[in-house]
This record gives sequence, C-alpha cells and structure tokens, in this order.
Amino acid sequence: MENFEKVTTGLGEECGVFGAYDMDGGDVAPTVYYGLFALQHRGQESCGIAVTDTYGERKVRSKKGLGLVNEVFDEESLHSLHGNLGVGHVRYSTAGGSRAENAMPLVINYVKGVLAIAHNGNLTNAVELRHELEHTGAIFQTTIDSEVIAYHIARERLKAPNVEGAVKNAMKKIKGAYALVVISPRKMIGARDPFGLKPLCIGKRDNTYVLASESCALAAIDAEFVRDVEPGEIVSITKDGISSDMSMAIDPAKQARCIFEYIYFARMDSTLDGVNVYHARMTAGRALAESYPVDADLVVGVPDSGLVAARGYSEQSGIPNGMAFHKNSYVGRTFIKPRQSERESSVRIKLNVIPEVVRGKRIVMVDDSIVRGTTCANIIRMLKKAGATEVHVRISSPPFLYPCYFGTDVPSNEQLIAHSHTTEQIREMIGADSLGYMEIDKLRDMVGDLSYCDACFTGNYPMEVPGKDVSLAFE
Amino acid sequence: MENFEKVTTGLGEECGVFGAYDMDGGDVAPTVYYGLFALQHRGQESCGIAVTDTYGERKVRSKKGLGLVNEVFDEESLHSLHGNLGVGHVRYSTAGGSRAENAMPLVINYVKGVLAIAHNGNLTNAVELRHELEHTGAIFQTTIDSEVIAYHIARERLKAPNVEGAVKNAMKKIKGAYALVVISPRKMIGARDPFGLKPLCIGKRDNTYVLASESCALAAIDAEFVRDVEPGEIVSITKDGISSDMSMAIDPAKQARCIFEYIYFARMDSTLDGVNVYHARMTAGRALAESYPVDADLVVGVPDSGLVAARGYSEQSGIPNGMAFHKNSYVGRTFIKPRQSERESSVRIKLNVIPEVVRGKRIVMVDDSIVRGTTCANIIRMLKKAGATEVHVRISSPPFLYPCYFGTDVPSNEQLIAHSHTTEQIREMIGADSLGYMEIDKLRDMVGDLSYCDACFTGNYPMEVPGKDVSLAFE
Amino acid sequence: MENFEKVTTGLGEECGVFGAYDMDGGDVAPTVYYGLFALQHRGQESCGIAVTDTYGERKVRSKKGLGLVNEVFDEESLHSLHGNLGVGHVRYSTAGGSRAENAMPLVINYVKGVLAIAHNGNLTNAVELRHELEHTGAIFQTTIDSEVIAYHIARERLKAPNVEGAVKNAMKKIKGAYALVVISPRKMIGARDPFGLKPLCIGKRDNTYVLASESCALAAIDAEFVRDVEPGEIVSITKDGISSDMSMAIDPAKQARCIFEYIYFARMDSTLDGVNVYHARMTAGRALAESYPVDADLVVGVPDSGLVAARGYSEQSGIPNGMAFHKNSYVGRTFIKPRQSERESSVRIKLNVIPEVVRGKRIVMVDDSIVRGTTCANIIRMLKKAGATEVHVRISSPPFLYPCYFGTDVPSNEQLIAHSHTTEQIREMIGADSLGYMEIDKLRDMVGDLSYCDACFTGNYPMEVPGKDVSLAFE
Amino acid sequence: MENFEKVTTGLGEECGVFGAYDMDGGDVAPTVYYGLFALQHRGQESCGIAVTDTYGERKVRSKKGLGLVNEVFDEESLHSLHGNLGVGHVRYSTAGGSRAENAMPLVINYVKGVLAIAHNGNLTNAVELRHELEHTGAIFQTTIDSEVIAYHIARERLKAPNVEGAVKNAMKKIKGAYALVVISPRKMIGARDPFGLKPLCIGKRDNTYVLASESCALAAIDAEFVRDVEPGEIVSITKDGISSDMSMAIDPAKQARCIFEYIYFARMDSTLDGVNVYHARMTAGRALAESYPVDADLVVGVPDSGLVAARGYSEQSGIPNGMAFHKNSYVGRTFIKPRQSERESSVRIKLNVIPEVVRGKRIVMVDDSIVRGTTCANIIRMLKKAGATEVHVRISSPPFLYPCYFGTDVPSNEQLIAHSHTTEQIREMIGADSLGYMEIDKLRDMVGDLSYCDACFTGNYPMEVPGKDVSLAFE
Repeated sequence: MENFEKVTTGLGEECGVFGAYDMDGGDVAPTVYYGLFALQHRGQESCGIAVTDTYGERKVRSKKGLGLVNEVFDEESLHSLHGNLGVGHVRYSTAGGSRAENAMPLVINYVKGVLAIAHNGNLTNAVELRHELEHTGAIFQTTIDSEVIAYHIARERLKAPNVEGAVKNAMKKIKGAYALVVISPRKMIGARDPFGLKPLCIGKRDNTYVLASESCALAAIDAEFVRDVEPGEIVSITKDGISSDMSMAIDPAKQARCIFEYIYFARMDSTLDGVNVYHARMTAGRALAESYPVDADLVVGVPDSGLVAARGYSEQSGIPNGMAFHKNSYVGRTFIKPRQSERESSVRIKLNVIPEVVRGKRIVMVDDSIVRGTTCANIIRMLKKAGATEVHVRISSPPFLYPCYFGTDVPSNEQLIAHSHTTEQIREMIGADSLGYMEIDKLRDMVGDLSYCDACFTGNYPMEVPGKDVSLAFE
Repeated sequence: MENFEKVTTGLGEECGVFGAYDMDGGDVAPTVYYGLFALQHRGQESCGIAVTDTYGERKVRSKKGLGLVNEVFDEESLHSLHGNLGVGHVRYSTAGGSRAENAMPLVINYVKGVLAIAHNGNLTNAVELRHELEHTGAIFQTTIDSEVIAYHIARERLKAPNVEGAVKNAMKKIKGAYALVVISPRKMIGARDPFGLKPLCIGKRDNTYVLASESCALAAIDAEFVRDVEPGEIVSITKDGISSDMSMAIDPAKQARCIFEYIYFARMDSTLDGVNVYHARMTAGRALAESYPVDADLVVGVPDSGLVAARGYSEQSGIPNGMAFHKNSYVGRTFIKPRQSERESSVRIKLNVIPEVVRGKRIVMVDDSIVRGTTCANIIRMLKKAGATEVHVRISSPPFLYPCYFGTDVPSNEQLIAHSHTTEQIREMIGADSLGYMEIDKLRDMVGDLSYCDACFTGNYPMEVPGKDVSLAFE
Repeated sequence: MENFEKVTTGLGEECGVFGAYDMDGGDVAPTVYYGLFALQHRGQESCGIAVTDTYGERKVRSKKGLGLVNEVFDEESLHSLHGNLGVGHVRYSTAGGSRAENAMPLVINYVKGVLAIAHNGNLTNAVELRHELEHTGAIFQTTIDSEVIAYHIARERLKAPNVEGAVKNAMKKIKGAYALVVISPRKMIGARDPFGLKPLCIGKRDNTYVLASESCALAAIDAEFVRDVEPGEIVSITKDGISSDMSMAIDPAKQARCIFEYIYFARMDSTLDGVNVYHARMTAGRALAESYPVDADLVVGVPDSGLVAARGYSEQSGIPNGMAFHKNSYVGRTFIKPRQSERESSVRIKLNVIPEVVRGKRIVMVDDSIVRGTTCANIIRMLKKAGATEVHVRISSPPFLYPCYFGTDVPSNEQLIAHSHTTEQIREMIGADSLGYMEIDKLRDMVGDLSYCDACFTGNYPMEVPGKDVSLAFE
Repeated sequence: MENFEKVTTGLGEECGVFGAYDMDGGDVAPTVYYGLFALQHRGQESCGIAVTDTYGERKVRSKKGLGLVNEVFDEESLHSLHGNLGVGHVRYSTAGGSRAENAMPLVINYVKGVLAIAHNGNLTNAVELRHELEHTGAIFQTTIDSEVIAYHIARERLKAPNVEGAVKNAMKKIKGAYALVVISPRKMIGARDPFGLKPLCIGKRDNTYVLASESCALAAIDAEFVRDVEPGEIVSITKDGISSDMSMAIDPAKQARCIFEYIYFARMDSTLDGVNVYHARMTAGRALAESYPVDADLVVGVPDSGLVAARGYSEQSGIPNGMAFHKNSYVGRTFIKPRQSERESSVRIKLNVIPEVVRGKRIVMVDDSIVRGTTCANIIRMLKKAGATEVHVRISSPPFLYPCYFGTDVPSNEQLIAHSHTTEQIREMIGADSLGYMEIDKLRDMVGDLSYCDACFTGNYPMEVPGKDVSLAFE
C-alpha cells in the first residue's frame, strides 16, 4: 500500500492485540513486549501493556505511551510490570490527531474489581451506544471503542454470573468488527465479532497461554499455534484451561473476514483462519498473471507488501522475478519530510531503484494497491529514469471504491484516485504502459473456502453500516 | 514544614486550580499557564490545561503530564491549546505512586457534550460513592475524586435543567473538601464545599474572568481580585456575567476553613477569605513570642515558610530578626539524594547557615511544623556548629496528632514524632535548648472571625470521617 | 542584579570550579556533584565532571552537557564516574550562543598522558595567544580559554620538569583573570591569576582535599575551610599533602579582587579572601543609609541579592526592615516568556509584592544594580500599585560605566542606562522618588584591607586590556 | 553479516561521509541530511552536520549527537544550520565505548580560519602520529583519527600555499585507509588514500556539487553521478569547478579497494569504482553455485545482505529462489535484548521463517559471513523446525582469519569461529547439512579488473600494519 499521508475518515483504526497468562506465575510483560514487536506493523501510533498477578496483591500495573514499542518501553519500565497475566496493544498511527489518552489497553475499575481491555476493530454503532450510555449517566474519557465495550461489560456484569457472560451480553449490543482481549483478576478472555472481521488466535508455550492478532507473534516468542478463535467465539483461559462459548456464532456462510488482512495488513509469515498470508499473496500474483499477461523481461515487487505477489506473477508467467528496489529501513516515524520546493522526495528517500537490475528491461511492477496515485507515479518515473523501457503495473487488489466501517483507514472518496477515474485514466496519470487491478472474483482464490468481506471494493457490507461518521468533541 | 519524604496515607492530595474565560474570545492558555506557575507550590507532581472555545467548533484540547508547569508545557504545546475558556491544575507530588492517568483536568464526554473538571481537595465518601456508581455500571479509569464528581454531575445532568443544577445536586451527594472549577461549552463554574475547607477566589482582567485557588495567582497575571467564592457557593460565569447559587451554604459558624493553608500551604502574598497569609503568619509569630518568651540575641526563620513568623516573633519580642540561612534554589525535584553513607546530607545541600550571622549568638529559630524531627535536628546541629550558643525552637503550629481526611498529606501516626513523644522528649531529640509549639487557642488570632478546621491538631473534625483508608486496585 | 536578557559582549563568562581528591581512594564524583550544586548560581548554561583514579587503570571518565547540574547528571551517570580525583565546572548561561562543545572540564590527551582542566575567568590576551598557537600548528575545537591554557601547559610540559612547572610557565604567558583547577594523573593543581581577580579556596574533609570557587561549597559537603589560594599562587595537592609555589605572586597592593563578587556574584554564605559576603553586603547597605538617608517607613530588599544590603540599610537608618516580595522559585531556565502583547510580564511571574506589607508606606527599596532599568521600573510600578506612597531606590553598587574584560558579563554600553543618562534622568525613567547609587569610595568599606578591582565603575583596569572584542568563527 | 554484538578491537570504525556545496548559495543542510539517511547503514552510533556559508559572515554552525540521523536532527535544528557548504558524517556503533566527543564532523579553528573534516577509515600510524604531535605540544580532545589528520593539515598549512596543498602534505604523513571530506571557507575538498581502501564519489544536482561515500546517496537526493574520486586523488571543488591533484596516486596495480564493501558494507544499489554492488553479489552467488553445487529445492537468502547472492546462486544453479524469512524492520537500536533465561531469542524477534515456503524442502541458505556461528545456528534451527528437510549453507565470503587495520570492525581472533575450527567443524556446530565458503580466488570475479584488499581472509596487507592496538586514556 502506498505510504499515503493518513487522512482519517472518522474513528477508523487498525491495531494489534496480544495477551499472555503464565499459569506458573512468571512475569509475562517481556513476553507481551516481544509479542507486540511482532505486531508492530499493525499500529505505530501508541502502545501499552497492562499486567496483573493472579496470586498476590492482584494490582493492575500499566504503561502506555505514544510511539513504537521500543520507544515506549525501556528495561526499567518493562521489569516494573510485575504480573503473570497481561495484555498489550499497538495502535495505528494517524496524522496529527493522535491522543495519548487513547492508548490501550484501557484499564478500568468496575463493580467486580479491575479489568483491562484491548481491542482491534471498529464498532459501527459506537456513536449510538455512546449516546445511549450517556443518557444513563456514563462519562467518556477517550474516543476509543474499548471504552464503549468496557461500559457494556461492566453493566452486564451486574446481571451476568461471570465476566464471560458479561462479555457475551455486551456482544449482543455492540455491532461491527472487533477482536478483543480482556484480562480480569484470574481470567484471560478472547473474543471475535460474529463475522470474524478481525483475526485472533491462541498459542501456548510451556504453561503460558497467549492470544494474538496474528500467528507471527506466536512464532516470535517460540509459542506453538493452538488454534484460531472462531468468529463469534468467546474463549476463557483460566488455570483450568480453555473453555469456549460459541453461542454468539453465526452461519459460517455469513462470516466476513477482512480480505485486506491477506492483501496488505497481516505479516506474510502469519496464517489467519487457516489461510497462510504468503500463500494468499502468491495466489494473488498468479491471478494477476492470468488476468493481465504481458510480454516483459522482469517482474518486480514494490517493498514490502508487493514482493510476494510479484513472485506469484513471476511463477505463473514464467517471467523472471527480480529485486529492483532498495528500501531504506532507517526512515522511521520521525523522519523530516522534504519540503515542496526540495528536489528530494519522500519516495526517493525511502526507496531507490537498482539501475543494473532494470536497465533496458520491460518491467512488470506489482504493488498491493493504489490510493492517490502519486507514490506509484513517482516509482514508475524512477524506474524509467533508471532505464526501464516499459513499466506494466499490476495491483494485487481491486480498486478501492467504498469506505470501510470496520477499522481500515481508507482515505475519503475524493482522495481515492479510483473513485473518480477509469483504469485507463489512472494508467495515464501514473505513467504506466499498462495497468491491471485484481479482478473481484479472483479474490476468492486467495482464501479458499473462507467467507470474507470485500465491501471496500464492492460496497456489499456484511451488516448495516452508519450513514456518516460522527466525530467526537475531544482533540 | 520539613521537606519530609512523602508517605501517603491514602488518596490525600493538595492541589491548585485555575480557570479563565475570555469573553472577547482571546486564547486563555497562556493566562492559565502563568496562573499555574503562581500555584506551583500547591503541587509539583503533574499538571495540565484543558481549553475549549465558546464560538467556533467548540472542541476541547488538553495537555497533561508528570512534572512542573515549565517541564510539561513548551511554546508549541501551549500555543496549540486554542480556546477562550480553559482550566488548569497542579497536582501534589507523592513518592512513588504517581500515575500519569491521574493528572488533571479530567476531560469527559457526557450527555450534554464535553466538560472539563479540576479540583482541589479530598472526598470523605469517595469509596462509598465509587462502589455505588459501580453498582449501577460505572467504570473508573483513574483514582482521583474528580472522576467521582464528574459521574455525579453527568448523572444529575440527566435530571437537572442546566449544568449548575447538576453541580448542585452532585454536591448534595459528595462529602468532604473540595474547590472545583468546571468548564462546560459556554460556562465556567466554580464551587467550594459547604465547609469551605479549600479556598477559591474570583478575579478579572479586562474582559477575562478567572478562578484561582489563591489570590497570588491573580496578581501574577495582573488581574483584579473580585471576591472569594463563598463556602457552599456555586458561581457560574457566562457572557452574561457572574451568577451565584448559595443554596448549599451552611451556617457560617459551622464553616471550617483549613487553618493549615494559613500556616503553610498558601503563598504569603495571598489573601484567602479576607485573611492575608502574611498577616496571619506574623500573628502566629507574635503569639509564639507571647507564649514562649526567651532571652536571646537573634530570631531567625527557616526558609521559606518560617520566615514570616520569625519576623512576627521578632516584632513582638524586640529581639532582632536575622537571616541565618541560604537556601539553594537550584535543588529541584530530580536532585540525586545523598546515600546513607555519604557525609553530604539532603539538608546541607538545600540549606546553609551563614556563620557570621549566628556565631556567638543565642538563636530563636522559627519553623512551621515538625514532622519526623530529623530535618529540624540537622538544622539545629548546623547552627550550633556555626557557633550558635543556644537554639530555641518555636513552631508556628500545634503538634500534629490526627490524620487529615480532607487532602492534607500528613504522614501516618507512627512517623509523626509528636504522636509518641512529649514536647520535652522532642526537644531533647532534636537538640534544642527550648521548644515551644503554637498554642491551640492562639490559632484563632491568626484568622480573626473566620471559622476554621484544626482537626489535625485536635481531632475535632467538622464532619463525619471514614474509619480507614481504602486503596484502589490501580497502580 | 536585574535578571536582564544576557547580551554577551564577547567571550565573557562567570563560572564555578570544584575539584576533589580522595587520598583514601573513594569515588569523588558525588562530592563534586554536591559541590557544583552549591556553585550553581555561578553558571547555569552547562556543567560537567571529569574524574580519574590514581591507582588503577587511570582512565579519565567525563560527562558534560547543557543544563543545570540536576539536569545533566542522573544516578546512573554519576555512579559510572569512578575515580578518586575529579574536577567539575558550572558555566554561565548566555542567550542563544550556547555551545555544547564549550562545556567544561576540558579533557585532553597530551605528551604526559591525560589532563582535565576547569577554569573561571577570562584571558585578556586569548585572541593573540590563539593566533600565536595557530601559527605553530595548533587547532582549536572550542571557544573557551581553557583550551588556550591547556595548550600552553602542554607545550611548557615539554620543557618543565613537572606539571606544576608547566602551569607556572603557562601563567607567564596568559594574561587576565582566572582561577584554575587542573587534574593530572596523580595531582590536583589549583591556581589563581596574580591579581586574584577570581576566587579559589581549599577545603578538607577526612582525607579528601577539595578546591572550590567559594567557601559555600565546602559547607555544602561538610568540609572544613583550610585557606584561600593566594593571588598568583599555584598549589599542588598530592598524597604527600599541599605544596605551594608563590613565585608568580605580585605586590599585594597591586592585587585586584573583583569587587562584584561581593556585591552580586558570590553566595552570601561564602567568605572570599577573608571577607564574608554577608558582612560586605551589610556594610554596603549601611553605607547607602549614610550616603542617602531618607524619611521612610520600611526598607525592603529585592530578592535575592538585595536582601542583605536592605538589612544593612535598616540597621544603620533605624527604619524597619520588611519582606515586600514573594519570589517564585519554580520559574526555571525553560520558562516560556510572556509575549509583548500579553499583560503578564516576566517580572510579575517571578516576583510578587505583598500588599499588606507595603500599603500606605514610604519604601526604601534596595537592589544590587541597575542595568537597563526596565526591571527596576516594573518593580517600582508594582510597589506603587500595591499602595506604597513613595519608593526610594538605593543601589548597592556604583553605576556600571565600563566594560569588564575579566569575565563579568555586562551588556554593551548602549544598553547600560547609566552610560547615557544622569542619575536624575534614571530616577525619573524608573519612576522612583529618589535614587542613590553606592559611592565609589565606600566600596572600600565592604572589603577592608583587600585590594580590589572596580574597573567596571571607574575604568581603572589593573592591567592592560584589549581594544575590542574579537569573535571566533564558531557558532 | 551476523548482527554480532560488536567487540571493538581498537579504534576501528566504518563510517559514511557526505559533503555538499551549493554554488547558488542555497542552504545545503537538508541535502546533507537526506544524503546521510542514505548512508545510515554505514554507521548508527552518532552523526553530525557542519555547515558554513561562502558569502556572508562565514561562521561554521554544527550539530552532532549520539543516535540515528532522525534522532539527532529535528526540523528546528536542521533549519538553523544555515549555509551553502556543508559536510556530514554517520559513525559506526560500537558497544559501550561510544563517546559523544567522537562524533564528526570535527570542526576546528586553525591558522587560516575554520575547517570541518569528516572521514571514513582508520589510520595505521595514528598512535605514532599522536605521540609525535604531542611531543611538539599538541593536545587531543578525541580519540578519532580526524583529529590527527586535522593537526597535520593545520601544520602543513603554515607552509603550503593553500589548503589542498596542506591536505596533500598531510597525506604524505598519514598511513592507512581514509576517504576524507574537508570544508574550508570557500572550498570543498575530497580525498582518498592512495590504496583506495575506502570509497568516495562525486555527484551534481543543478549547481550543487556533492561528495559521498556511496553512489546510493546521490540517487537519494536526485543528483547525477559525476565520477569516483580516484585512489590517491585530491579533488577541490570551488565556484570555479572541480580541480584534481593526482600526485599522491600510486600504481593502479597496487590499489587495494576493500572487497568487503562489495560483500557486505555497501548498499546494493550503489556502484563503487565502476563496480555495481548488486552485480558483484549476484556474481558471488553464482560462484558459490559453481563451487558448491547441491541437490536442493529452494535457494533462500538471509536478509538483507544475503538476498542478492541467493538470487545469483539460484540463477546459476537453476534451483528456484524463495523468500523464506520475514525481517522485522521495527527492531531498532534501542530494542531490549531478551535475557539468557528467556525463550525469546534476539534472532527470533528480528527474523521469522515463513513455514509455507520451506516446509518439506531441501534449502540452500545464503548469507554473507559467519562470525561466531551462533546466529547462523539459530536460523538453521528455525528453518528445520519449520519443516526444512535439509539446510545447505553457502557463505558469500571466505572465512575471516586476520584482523583488519583499516576500519572494518572484526571481532578478535578468539571470537571468530573460523579461526579455531575447520569448515567441517563449523558445519557440525551450526547444524548445517553442508557448508561452503566463497573461494578466495573467486573474489576476483566480483570486481573485474579492480585491485582489491582481501587481507582479512589472506593476511596479505597492502601496507605495513601495526603490531598491536593501543588504546587511549579517554573513556
């Protein structure tokens, strides 16, 4: 995906969650820390860890902050987070409107003591629920959906026999996309929305259970993959093991996993709901080769997310795969952007063409998406300047045409090039010799039997969505 | 007061609040910033400012953080706080248990939009109220009483016709000590508890109204003193001016202003409820001279709070007043404390005796209080080493004997030297030649007709107090 | 002295030095740290500590940085500075042109190993010496005179039998004002320029010898005062004790101690060359009372430096002394200055009048100097607004008329109000009812028999001074 | 190269230099900043920029610090560096012994004014030269060779007609490896040691000339490659263009470019002395395939430096190339290392295997070097755990056997696994099924006709080298 300057359309957010519970009583904060590292690609704005212990004084300790995991935590703060039950979160970076108060996990005191909650996703009825809660005396200190969810759990807990029951009852009220990790004094609870829009899986290492947005975080801490949490499932992990409540599950045919996880969000070494991301991207690349064959000399991927699909295109087409770009891994979040008037462009600082690879060649360039088109145009210009004779662009997703209400931060329509231009117009604008977008019905091949959501391409939302975004009065 | 290592006894806190409302629409953040500077002595742990505008988009912008006012705010952050209605807060430093989440003002979204609240004081029924609220589904994200107050205002607002009414109804439920500043979209509200335990006053500069814990903050921004907010009074400041609701006021004879504000907390250039602090301390010094005359050569005050009372003692006794100490003003919050084994003591780093002043003299040394006795003993040792032949200690407050439930952070009984020792024993322990504590009934002279609270000396609490502290499960 | 915005006139600097040598082998960094705290008033721009050990591997470890002592050092950095021989420095704050490279001590490697040097003062022939050195191949990395001195010591060391000899030979070449502390592998050397312009004294605690700019630093670490280093003396402290070389000393009648140390720079609890600063300021106040008697009700000093002289005026005149101002000790270096358009002034943020003290009174206000006059005018305005009926200003130094070439940072002539206005004109400009400056010949009373330099008032420089300042090409 | 914990063997350093001179007078600091970004892989310990202007006041402004380019510079500091002639430096990270004073560029004042110098490389006679200089009165404030070079330039400048001549005469004295960029008031000078051990090239954009360690930095700022600076050449860039002095050049057959630049240091999109790094690595991979063929299913490279050679092996052998690893690009310099006892290993945090790619496959794994062997062993274990049936390791460099005296930071002999083990022993220790190191004589193929240095593999040093390292007395 182009590294576009993020323009938020509302409360959208992509995030990662990670929970750990060591039944032997060891501190889990280091485990959560390394787990969050593996999920850092899901959010770079802020992060946090909250821990408690299940045996001693049972206090909750937490640390949250703006920045990357290695910026927020140091040796001292990490080791002060004593406790064998913990949850961590990484939050998506939005331009400007970042707010320290919104960092997760959210730690609350409620009728049954303390509870920490982290979630990934976006509620579609958050605004209504906020209003409803406010009309019964609720106060809100953040703009995150976790606070709405926490309120519902707290209120349902007054009636439900246990926290799992409260989570279930809360799930009956909240609509939208979510993967939740909740820690309460002696339990770690995981839940996914009934459509399964957001991923969540279970792992185990020795006597420590973990919950993670993606399986790559299990590998990072050397945990074994146990299984995915099912869409609509609530799992409760205690010293007695894992128990499951499937009563919120819906007809599997109606499930709607976010297809964009496979195209772009997830790490290529993750497997979500049984589908390996690397494999899915290879399939996408092959599909592009079938749909848009071209006579060319070399297939190249735009780092990092276009690299795998480029290999798929290469395999299918028989055109060799090459490494055309060097990506500068030192360009961090705090990089000073070149000014308009400066010849150095952000693209050139981050990405350089290797002229020896592309000179005199007809290139197939594979990327995951086109948002505004400017980055893509810049890269094509660099390739041609380096001597590429033709540049054929293949995009491993269909054109973005519809807003996402489930947490994917897509620019508003006016900024989406595909919204107001034909493919041929876009081709001309970016200076490509040909341009092919993934065909809608080929998405199916990427994920096999899984039911998925492709609403951002088709407008077919799996559930009712709100008419328009409502912004809150905080800044 | 000795700069004792703070040992919190519960939720105790001393704080300062400052609100500003510019009817002409100018930004008030700089005014709040300078106002908080003048109140910094009331709290050095954390501070914050929240502002909104009463004309444009009416968003609330806030910045809070751990540290002093000049550490938390820089030019950039201050000038990003656009808005003509704002409230700020400085919070007291407690050892260890500081928690960024507890910084004020608390900014909330509730049924009627946004509200920011800052308070100084301590509720005596906070734990009960929290439990009550939790049993109706409330969630708590901080351990500060502001959150309890905010909940009550939010819930009462569902029934009350306006926010002032909601504040009043909330005041019917909350017990204890508080001075409140609340900003809601177009109003700035100030309130004091019916006993008037905590101070609050109103000032005006051009078309800007301000509310401040102490009048010294008015002088700092060149505002005129308008009047004090009365105990139990709710003032509402809008573009139509100041309106007042006195329906929560009680019999003036039952009012109970904190006498310790006059002895130690408040700045000597403030006037609280008509009583000038400088004047009150002079009176205390004179009273000490009457109660404990002594044949001596020089009266010296321990900086900073003992300086004025020393002048009073001098005036009354006719013994000259001298400047015996140099206080190092560069010893800040982050000073590395000397280790046990080091010859340098914290006292010596902060305070040095001027030998030329004390050599060969019989000294009357005036300080505001004795907590553990160690600092006092060290100072006496320094005076004698510098050649003082006698050191007579006069303390401008009676011995601390009872805990304060209203926000004054007094160490627990075991650490209070007066709790387990007679005055004669203390005199011997600190190495003084004589020791006199302010007599209880002389406190009256300091404040004239005002009703005041002296429970920390007498145990006569103006209202029912809780049996014991309950700590919350956060850390 | 008015807290004027510093406008440097060249290389001027006021600084503090502190050295420590523990013959028993203990680490001295904490001692140096606390010593520098006591000298912080001599310089707030930067500070540093360099240590070595005299037994083990004899490496030099150092840490320097921009900021106050408690900002530059933390527990970890302080305790990593192992070594029983050390030297520290605090450097004066200049607006803007601060340069991290100029922080001291300067640590160098030269023909005989390592040497660390810290100095207070200003060479008058630094520019010539730099040019001379450059013409024999020297390179300069800083703009501080220490580097010039270090070069001379290094070069002289090639010929001299020991480092003391090299220091002596260097002193034959360098002109101007300096107090030096040098540590070389097994020696701590202290030296003062032959005129004794800058102070330096020797202290001892157990088996640790210390050198310090002022005696107050000895008290801070509980060391005994041994004696002052004499003007022109070189002391060498080794495990064999103190040895002294007086061969650079000049006729005591020609010595020229900086009188401004007594008026303003030094801490009032210091004694320099046998003259106690508190005592000197009292004398100055008394002299002002003799020279400029007035019918008034109260004598008040402007904190901090005017406080003692005010007591002297009071004692001599019989007019009571009062405390008219509260100084806000939280206004640190990083305070955001009010903008032109804001009603809050820097003076009012830092200093508040206590109206109860001054109302209806005829005031004698004592301060140490007037630079531009704006601060003084603001304070007088505040006093009158608070009800003072008259304000008679008494200044405990004569008017500044000549530049200082020895390290006192006086604004250039155009900015000095006394340079272009008569006393009567100044009186009118600042709004005082009368104005009296210390008479030149009364300065003598402050310091008894000591020879002193009063060139900034008289233009009588003790040595040849350069025609004009030359700035270096660094920034 | 394994990301080994760096153990410095002396003064070794790998670094990057970048100079820019805008003849039109525009500020060059942003250009230098972006240039350093592109060279960041050459050094992550510290960085700095010094600029001057060639028209106005001609002051030198500089900023240096510990950390990455985007950590040391912010918008404000970058834009305060006014000037159209500048030089920047990135310095290599060593464990522990980092020293702020050693950051470059070194800015000095000398007989002809100001000069800033940055270099990459290591002098072999630095210790002797330091001693020599000290014996003529030099003082050293850093431990970097730049200071030695600067002294020689300064001293030679006393005799030479211009700075180029001084650089040339200095080059007659200094021995070892260096690429220099010097800025003096109106000139930018570049020079390489006669052997050409370190690279340096010239670029141009509009009217701005640049000098850079690698050509990738030219591409990053959209400058055209002009040419390489030749071994032994001194180029002087002024407003009159580029002039060259080749009088220090030696017989091209004796030139000795560092072969490790091609194997590991340089970015794959750079071209050094006419040899493209990508191309050289492809050649290395092909050579490995010829030398060590194996029956396998997939060739994979270890990111980042093994990726290209793996493609070469694949092309030559016909075995498909695959992407087996995900590298976590968020693991920065300040990452908290897992403790011994923790199951998470540093390798696993940084690198994850994509099981789908390797499962059931016989793998050829290509990396650039083996240092201690532990990282390699961990990666092989991860591959096998993920289902690889065989892992054949191919290393694109010969075994390290000899220390480098020219700036490459190779661990000491005892830590080099190849020093004390046969290839078969190493194979067994790392758990590989086969192991092949690049053959010494195949290195020639990588760089064509160029003369190169392979002393770290062969011990054939191009010049005399010192017997042992001498450490300086700073820390």
